[in-house]
Amino acid sequence: MAAPRAATPGPGGGARKPELDLELGSSTQTSHRLLAYSDALLSIIATVMILPVAHTKIHPDQKLGESVQQLLLTKIAVYLMTFLIVTVAWAAHVRLFQVIELIDDVLALLNLVSITRYFSLMASFPGVPFGIFLFSVCAVVIGLIQAVIVVYGFYHPHLLNQQIQVSENQNFYKRHILKIILRGPALCFLAAIFSFFFIPLSYLLLGLVIVFPHLSRFITWCKTKIVGHRDEEEASYSLETFSFYLSEPLSKERVEAFSDGVYAIVATLLILDICEDNVPDPREVGEKFHGSLLEALSEYGPNYLAYFGSFVTIGLLWFVHHSLFLYVTKATRLMGLLNILSLAFIGGLPLAYQLTSEFAEKSHNEIEAIQVSCVITFFASIFQFAIWTTALLHERETLHPFARYGGKEHAFMFAKLALYPCVSLGAFFLTCLLSEFSTEIFHLMQIVIPFAFLALRIFVRISLTVIKSVMSLSRRKVVLLEEEEACLSPTETHS
Amino acid sequence: MAAPRAATPGPGGGARKPELDLELGSSTQTSHRLLAYSDALLSIIATVMILPVAHTKIHPDQKLGESVQQLLLTKIAVYLMTFLIVTVAWAAHVRLFQVIELIDDVLALLNLVSITRYFSLMASFPGVPFGIFLFSVCAVVIGLIQAVIVVYGFYHPHLLNQQIQVSENQNFYKRHILKIILRGPALCFLAAIFSFFFIPLSYLLLGLVIVFPHLSRFITWCKTKIVGHRDEEEASYSLETFSFYLSEPLSKERVEAFSDGVYAIVATLLILDICEDNVPDPREVGEKFHGSLLEALSEYGPNYLAYFGSFVTIGLLWFVHHSLFLYVTKATRLMGLLNILSLAFIGGLPLAYQLTSEFAEKSHNEIEAIQVSCVITFFASIFQFAIWTTALLHERETLHPFARYGGKEHAFMFAKLALYPCVSLGAFFLTCLLSEFSTEIFHLMQIVIPFAFLALRIFVRISLTVIKSVMSLSRRKVVLLEEEEACLSPTETHS
Repeated sequence: MAAPRAATPGPGGGARKPELDLELGSSTQTSHRLLAYSDALLSIIATVMILPVAHTKIHPDQKLGESVQQLLLTKIAVYLMTFLIVTVAWAAHVRLFQVIELIDDVLALLNLVSITRYFSLMASFPGVPFGIFLFSVCAVVIGLIQAVIVVYGFYHPHLLNQQIQVSENQNFYKRHILKIILRGPALCFLAAIFSFFFIPLSYLLLGLVIVFPHLSRFITWCKTKIVGHRDEEEASYSLETFSFYLSEPLSKERVEAFSDGVYAIVATLLILDICEDNVPDPREVGEKFHGSLLEALSEYGPNYLAYFGSFVTIGLLWFVHHSLFLYVTKATRLMGLLNILSLAFIGGLPLAYQLTSEFAEKSHNEIEAIQVSCVITFFASIFQFAIWTTALLHERETLHPFARYGGKEHAFMFAKLALYPCVSLGAFFLTCLLSEFSTEIFHLMQIVIPFAFLALRIFVRISLTVIKSVMSLSRRKVVLLEEEEACLSPTETHS
Repeated sequence: MAAPRAATPGPGGGARKPELDLELGSSTQTSHRLLAYSDALLSIIATVMILPVAHTKIHPDQKLGESVQQLLLTKIAVYLMTFLIVTVAWAAHVRLFQVIELIDDVLALLNLVSITRYFSLMASFPGVPFGIFLFSVCAVVIGLIQAVIVVYGFYHPHLLNQQIQVSENQNFYKRHILKIILRGPALCFLAAIFSFFFIPLSYLLLGLVIVFPHLSRFITWCKTKIVGHRDEEEASYSLETFSFYLSEPLSKERVEAFSDGVYAIVATLLILDICEDNVPDPREVGEKFHGSLLEALSEYGPNYLAYFGSFVTIGLLWFVHHSLFLYVTKATRLMGLLNILSLAFIGGLPLAYQLTSEFAEKSHNEIEAIQVSCVITFFASIFQFAIWTTALLHERETLHPFARYGGKEHAFMFAKLALYPCVSLGAFFLTCLLSEFSTEIFHLMQIVIPFAFLALRIFVRISLTVIKSVMSLSRRKVVLLEEEEACLSPTETHS
């Protein structure tokens, strides 16, 4: 028990790799902190795309049903598209810094510039033709800067991954990583051109950016299934040389960092909403509530409750994600995809808050707003559950022994991940049946769940000890039987 | 060169400590990711406090001179106070998780709850009496939750720091850490009581929360200087037992994580500003600019330029911070304090952006707005420079050999850190002299600086090689002299 902890050098200091290699040249450095910062900024950029959706004003007279459909058709589609395009760009960024392992000041500055360009993506609004053009042009510029990073990296080979450094066909690697990085921007370039002639085509091209990596993998998979190993020579060649970063999934650390960024920024958006709209202005307090902040706060009470509920939800979804990834040893491509889908729905939580706090009175709109919140929560949590089931399919590679079938934590993990999908589904159907109490049901659900997590722990522990005692009883019988067998045939074991 | 890199297991995967100890019980875990997430959220909370200041509407007719004074007197003071109180709470959080090194699910949930309570700090506005009361009560509740964490931790000793686990006087430690955690909330409790009777006293008490840790250290330092080692027995006792977390500074990893959070959230606030105010609404585009986004964007041009400049500034300040902490091996208390002051000014950058973008026309206000921006940038960067000079005072403990006097990177580091203070000071005086071109000077400064960083690199390299060649010439003479001496006395070396 003492052995693993003795590794920590001082109090609180995690045993990270030292960021500076003594033997390397002046300002060459491992890129850990730079990449963590890039992950944080990219996740912010991806998530902030929800703002135009969340801040759409809905008239109280208007029926939410129609406006939700309107939202779904335009802004949410745009949000999902931009979120997924940014995640594709992020994946390319991860691949890039898997090849270039060490950085110097020039690369650090170039990387910061490319991240800055990402931010200008935000300023363009891809709902109008010229917006699509701006968005695509930004994407192309980012691709070009990343290409410059690749060229710079291969010009200074000591910065590269050691496997590539040793390899003889560096040019082949260079072309391959350039292909990975530039295929998205190339499609965006086409989209930029077509945005002046035929908008749907440019939307289609932008959609293609998202599905292209998965599509190409699917096609090669189909090829090998149908045609068989036709071009076996080429396949084995590429398999050998690129195995370390083609078949290798995205690194778990960066997936975690990106996810943490999304959770943190969603929490911030909730905060900003409450700060801007719901904190009583001193002037307003003076005029409207005769200087009493208490009265003013009681007026804003329902909003605070809705906010607090959403905040608890985001915190607990992070907690579940944290518990899950604690037992994940390797995140495969499919798990990464499911994680990104889950994050896309978590990015929708500010919208859910906005909707539930806007319709605090009992109306038909209110029920629909709550149902939208339930649906968002359900999808965010069901995709987390899907990560878990996908991981179980290849549990030897992807999961820690504790979390595999029959592991110590398997049952508890299952219960933890199943709690949110079940509760949000239950709340959805309850609001359908008991439409009068929908707000109460929803807020109760959000506030009870933390206690459910604690109770779950105790419940699972009790049931586990029960199962264990039953198992040990049955195992004792097996052991006895085996011993009897062993007694009956002692000669065979000797031979 | 190959040795340190061979330690990385796969591509891109940093050599972090595995987060799960195989030999430990079911769900006990090292707290790395939880602490990183807490750092991110706490830095967000501290920084978001700037929003009420940044979003104060200033009438264009009003002279900015007066309104800046008004701002300085009330809102900026409140921002600085709350920012510093949150950093004190963050420091207590760091201390707490230096004592409790491993966490289980209950602790993870308790920690999330306490972080949630921090967020409710935001909702209270400490500008009016009842706001102070709410703020103080939140701080007290947070203190109580953290006390529960301590009690829970000492009830399950396998979660504690190993040194405390082994030690015999655990109760002593427990009392001490409780004292550290609860002294802030106790002062806040008093502030809450006095907020109903006498406001200035409660502000004073809240101010005391900030300076108390430094004050108490200063007093003990004075005592030992003046009285001498009066209670030597007690001092040696406490020095021996508490040495590892009292004299030990905050861990460098968490200081970095907190700083990264502040930089990232400031970048986000800039983005949110541009998204909310300056992205042309589709409806507005249709009505005002006859559907042409290009016209609409040209209208918003100056804003984009101001935004881009601020964004470059924040990115480069992060880059300087990153370069500095790459060579810092240990962050002392004073360095931590200077870092927090630097961050407080960086939190003011959204205000600077708001001011410069609001007064795009040539007026007296505009110059003052630009001067405020220069002052904020100057203080943010001069405190970074102060971290560096403080580190040099104890360079053997705090700095990497490369960055010490005469180290490879010393000159370059100095130039990097000195660039921003010099340029912002220069821009400040230039705007005083050439008040007509102040906007042009300011924007030019912001956009030229990245190139200055690259040129600096080349310049310092050239001057270093010149110095080196001069040094090597003089050294060769020394070596020759030494060789002559060695030739003269060969018998001594043999004996």
